[in-house]
Amino acid sequence: MADKGKKAKVEDEDGSEPRDSELFLTIQKLQEVQDELEKVNEEASDKVLEVEQKYNKIRKPVYQKRSEIIQRIPDFWLTAFLSHPALSEILTDNDQKVFKFLQSLEVDEFPDIKSGYSITFTFNSNPYFENSSLAKSFHISEEGTTTVKCSEIKWQHGMDFTNGVKHAVGTKRSLPEESFFKWFVETGWTQDEIADIIREDLWPNPLKYFHNDQDDEDDEDDDD
Amino acid sequence: MADKGKKAKVEDEDGSEPRDSELFLTIQKLQEVQDELEKVNEEASDKVLEVEQKYNKIRKPVYQKRSEIIQRIPDFWLTAFLSHPALSEILTDNDQKVFKFLQSLEVDEFPDIKSGYSITFTFNSNPYFENSSLAKSFHISEEGTTTVKCSEIKWQHGMDFTNGVKHAVGTKRSLPEESFFKWFVETGWTQDEIADIIREDLWPNPLKYFHNDQDDEDDEDDDD
Ligand SMILES: [Ca+2]
Ligand SMILES: [Ca+2]
Ligand SMILES: [Mg+2]
Ligand SMILES: [Mg+2]
Repeated sequence: MADKGKKAKVEDEDGSEPRDSELFLTIQKLQEVQDELEKVNEEASDKVLEVEQKYNKIRKPVYQKRSEIIQRIPDFWLTAFLSHPALSEILTDNDQKVFKFLQSLEVDEFPDIKSGYSITFTFNSNPYFENSSLAKSFHISEEGTTTVKCSEIKWQHGMDFTNGVKHAVGTKRSLPEESFFKWFVETGWTQDEIADIIREDLWPNPLKYFHNDQDDEDDEDDDD
Repeated sequence: MADKGKKAKVEDEDGSEPRDSELFLTIQKLQEVQDELEKVNEEASDKVLEVEQKYNKIRKPVYQKRSEIIQRIPDFWLTAFLSHPALSEILTDNDQKVFKFLQSLEVDEFPDIKSGYSITFTFNSNPYFENSSLAKSFHISEEGTTTVKCSEIKWQHGMDFTNGVKHAVGTKRSLPEESFFKWFVETGWTQDEIADIIREDLWPNPLKYFHNDQDDEDDEDDDD
């Protein structure tokens, strides 16, 4: 339809001269080469994705091994969070008490990678909520739109300190930074800075932050 | 050095208890797993780069074919520039006169891709400058710093309209947007928005913009 329209127009406006129809054919050829390039680009993207998927699979057992080691280090994630310049900002005193029960943290890319990822926090039995794990996940559709989902936190009676905070601030709009658990239940933002930091910065190398806290006095000497 | 210091500290502070040395060994094991992950990540990056290099080679003859077709379309790049919302902003009346002599435009990623790229403008013999081609290139070092280089424009006597403009505006700091050729000789910025647009937007599909100009009245009907 669109192509026919264009052809007709070139001929109408300038009187169907041979030069115009030659130009039209040249542009058509250019469009064909452009389509050829697009195919190459799509194949390249597919191959890059394949490589990423392959290495994701290779990383998985290594992350599993890491997770087991981390569980033998007391307060590992709490320490790493508190030592991270941005993540420490969202941990309130109450959050820290709950993080004492945090057993593991896992970031899982969905198998095809491009459709999203989840962050799962596994907790030991604790007086704050019934859940043994809390997951927040980011689902990217074929069209590129992001949907955020999170577990419903089943707070023990009187233990939901995030509600408490909300009432305390009154009309002031609550910031997600006020508590880790406020961030956790916030699903309205598709660009989640905290989730990005957990996935792209903390998860690849949490030891970097864990160490930061262990020896404040020699920060300048850090190898990385 | 750093590791010895940490070990000593753990032992000193808490009195060399077996539990501490166990913790130290656990953290050491965690560091080993972290190193293993880093190796996997490096291998993954290398493989992705290999794929990109391979497809860059595949694209090259297609771009060559495209370039030959484009040269048979009068004022192709001039039209595409003028139809591009950002690039049209930098084309002065004088620039447009020079662009009448623009024979081809080429973006070349350096063979290893990660070390940079060049943009080459080839001109037919023209009354403005002696150069038959002008290239602007972006070189990225191993450490990630960018150096920008450009051809020296050998203006014909009295033809350097960029100098003219510079004098005309007096003390006012000249904006690179004032002329394509002012942008071209500007090498002080390592983040070059115009170069990014040419490389990432115009170059992959210039026909999109060329068409924009050809049929303003059916902009809503565009397939893409
Ligand atoms: Ca340190
Ligand atoms: Ca159009
Ligand atoms: Mg874990
Ligand atoms: Mg060309």
